[in-house]
Amino acid sequence: MSTPAKGYAAHSAETPLALWNFERRTPRADDVSIEILYCGVCHSDLHFARDDWGMAAYPVVPGHEIVGRVTAVGHDVTTFKTGDIVGVGCMVDSCRQCNSCNSGLEQYCAEGFTMTYGSPDRHDNTLTQGGYSDSVVVSERFVVGMPDGLDLKSAAPILCAGITTYSPLKHYGVKPGDKVGVIGMGGLGHMGVKLASAMGAEVTLFTRSESKVAEAKKQGADHVVVSTDEAQMTAVTETFDFMLDTVPVQHDINPYLNALKPDGTHILVGLLEPLDPAVSGANLVFRRRVLAGSLIGGMPETQEVLEFCAEHGITCDVEMINIDQINEAWDRMQKGDVRYRFVIDMASLKDSSAA
Amino acid sequence: MSTPAKGYAAHSAETPLALWNFERRTPRADDVSIEILYCGVCHSDLHFARDDWGMAAYPVVPGHEIVGRVTAVGHDVTTFKTGDIVGVGCMVDSCRQCNSCNSGLEQYCAEGFTMTYGSPDRHDNTLTQGGYSDSVVVSERFVVGMPDGLDLKSAAPILCAGITTYSPLKHYGVKPGDKVGVIGMGGLGHMGVKLASAMGAEVTLFTRSESKVAEAKKQGADHVVVSTDEAQMTAVTETFDFMLDTVPVQHDINPYLNALKPDGTHILVGLLEPLDPAVSGANLVFRRRVLAGSLIGGMPETQEVLEFCAEHGITCDVEMINIDQINEAWDRMQKGDVRYRFVIDMASLKDSSAA
Repeated sequence: MSTPAKGYAAHSAETPLALWNFERRTPRADDVSIEILYCGVCHSDLHFARDDWGMAAYPVVPGHEIVGRVTAVGHDVTTFKTGDIVGVGCMVDSCRQCNSCNSGLEQYCAEGFTMTYGSPDRHDNTLTQGGYSDSVVVSERFVVGMPDGLDLKSAAPILCAGITTYSPLKHYGVKPGDKVGVIGMGGLGHMGVKLASAMGAEVTLFTRSESKVAEAKKQGADHVVVSTDEAQMTAVTETFDFMLDTVPVQHDINPYLNALKPDGTHILVGLLEPLDPAVSGANLVFRRRVLAGSLIGGMPETQEVLEFCAEHGITCDVEMINIDQINEAWDRMQKGDVRYRFVIDMASLKDSSAA
Repeated sequence: MSTPAKGYAAHSAETPLALWNFERRTPRADDVSIEILYCGVCHSDLHFARDDWGMAAYPVVPGHEIVGRVTAVGHDVTTFKTGDIVGVGCMVDSCRQCNSCNSGLEQYCAEGFTMTYGSPDRHDNTLTQGGYSDSVVVSERFVVGMPDGLDLKSAAPILCAGITTYSPLKHYGVKPGDKVGVIGMGGLGHMGVKLASAMGAEVTLFTRSESKVAEAKKQGADHVVVSTDEAQMTAVTETFDFMLDTVPVQHDINPYLNALKPDGTHILVGLLEPLDPAVSGANLVFRRRVLAGSLIGGMPETQEVLEFCAEHGITCDVEMINIDQINEAWDRMQKGDVRYRFVIDMASLKDSSAA
């Protein structure tokens, strides 16, 4: 029996998000039913809903940084029980049988993972709907437990911004004493600074804006380089072991490659466009540098980053909003006017009714 | 006391190579004096001498794939003695104290290594002169021993083409059973095929030319993909663990990235230009792929590749020439008309005298 749900949906690329009544599926044997408490607001939500990527499907309820309470579990569910506090990130399903899935790297599923919103469900072909809503039903494998001691409001963005930065830092082998540059001081960047610092790295934040220097140091950056200042960039030539590049728009990565030592690694987590200006082959060859990509993280690692954040007292800097402020929040997010993530308090949805 | 030497030198970017009498330096305490037996002919020789890279210095005797016999050693030399058969590759010196040098990665020396030809010597500031000559004097650290059982003529190109392909295959971790693509079937490419096969990999040669299919299989490629055939490229989507890209001119690497599995690595060894067409960020991010560079190899690894080749019976396919055929050989090399490396028999220089 499907369950009535409500959420804020986009019905087209041009219309603002608005209250929408819809149905959550009848829970399957491996499903966890979740009452959503908080949901982070990610740039991807806006890009998807406004069809910037040409892959939108409507109506769509965005949101993939979900924290909630378990209200019911299917009879095959063993990890969670009613009352548990859990999280859901960017994925809600995958093929579960390819090499990537078998390695706990569901984000690289050979068939493509099922996104938390806007993907056809693999079983009933209905469109998945995300976390700007009061409830969600998700297969156990794609649910993580929220560790004790983590502030739930500010932990929600760990499920996307946190895992996206944690996964490559771990995978590419950041260790104590390494010099790590983090490029960009947004939702991902500020988490990158905190996580790399907690891993014992010496962290330098690269920002185009002089005005972010003090703030970056407050976030834990050991050093700040203003990337528009050529002298500052020259001064860090061949200095870094890793560069975590969180900038989601086209930019010249060659000056950052030059800032890497031999064998240094430049990690792209936000840039999906063609790399223009062109990457210089010589910048890679002459110093055996590596240019790498990384996409969110697999389910075991998503659980791991939550434990890591709990252990190190790391959460995201958030600004809480009510659901009826979401359109205004998107406008502000688009202007970069948020430090560093909006999170929706879903209690504010309880009393809303469709217009 | 400096020693008279003769070689073939370019005196400008426009003039052909011609016999030139010059001096080799008075051996220093750590120097090995070498009578040159064979010298391979590398594309770089031509690029340097014709000033394609804007870094030429004249006169220049090219050649950095040198095999010869030790004629004298300085009193600090411990590894070699008179009569030993030795090799010299692309480097003849480096700072010997930076992290890279201390790690046996002299090719990434923080101060830049001293090239075998066309570099100022670090001690007396004279220009280094390469292997298209009858003798050379090289610091012990930059001399390797030629293992028994290796055919010396055809082993000479291992000192550049061999180490350039061996080093990244080792460094990036090619292991038995891995699927390795080798792009381009020139001097580097055909060595890449042989070396990757000897490492136990399943090797696929990518070539633009249908006409090279049979030849590639003869070289040991398990499969051949004609890269201009879209259907063949589509058929290998997400198939490879590694791609060894030996193509020295601009080309679109995106189709090759698509042929890599998640976590696959595309290794550039020949392309120093800007990567145009632009690399798609998505092609890296969505599959956690890696784009990497690699430059020749360090001295310990240069010794290692020679041992590896001796053990596995690997040499380069060569066409022997006399020194007075060098200008014609360069013309043919530029047209790709060589399988796969010219090697100069330096006995042919003995009877030459300057015009």
